[in-house]
Amino acid sequence: MDNNSPELDTIFLAFADSTRRAVLRRLGDGPASVSDLAAPFDMALPPFMKHIRTLENAGLITTEKVGRVRTCELNPEKYAAVEDWLKEQRQQWASRYRKLDQLLKQLKEKDK
Amino acid sequence: MDNNSPELDTIFLAFADSTRRAVLRRLGDGPASVSDLAAPFDMALPPFMKHIRTLENAGLITTEKVGRVRTCELNPEKYAAVEDWLKEQRQQWASRYRKLDQLLKQLKEKDK
Repeated sequence: MDNNSPELDTIFLAFADSTRRAVLRRLGDGPASVSDLAAPFDMALPPFMKHIRTLENAGLITTEKVGRVRTCELNPEKYAAVEDWLKEQRQQWASRYRKLDQLLKQLKEKDK
Repeated sequence: MDNNSPELDTIFLAFADSTRRAVLRRLGDGPASVSDLAAPFDMALPPFMKHIRTLENAGLITTEKVGRVRTCELNPEKYAAVEDWLKEQRQQWASRYRKLDQLLKQLKEKDK
């Protein structure tokens, strides 16, 4: 995903909250209803629903309402975008350290 | 790092902006002065400095002022916390899929 992608903004923003991270972790065990997800938190339903919507807008989860129950499910594919971005950063440093290593070797050769 | 860690909040928040991600990418090539980092952006210095401070507060970069020049440097160690968190999530899904696989096998055995 492009570094400028607004999608990365919404994903990282969704990760930047411990309640939302806890919901994602819970959904890693399988789908769950909003009320089950909300149970461990000392939080009214409207602010909790806001967290759910933030996760849904970021594409990290999907939700489906059947009757009066809204069920949430994790969408692991979105994590790949973040992992790719982190991997690119790592590759960049690795390439820089290789270049510094080469430079150091050249300087040592000159000293001999 | 603990899922509830406020440190993860500040790191993910720092990542949730394309200007800050671009600064991190540039710093992957080596240290740079704030004015060099700001050059590619059509942005006044005060809002740009705010981005720099957000990255510094998250521990993703360190800065040092010598004379009138503030130089920024990447702190790759902080990325490890994010990578660990993502890895934990992946391991959780993997464990869930293994359990589902086993369940499917058991159901198939029963059918025989």
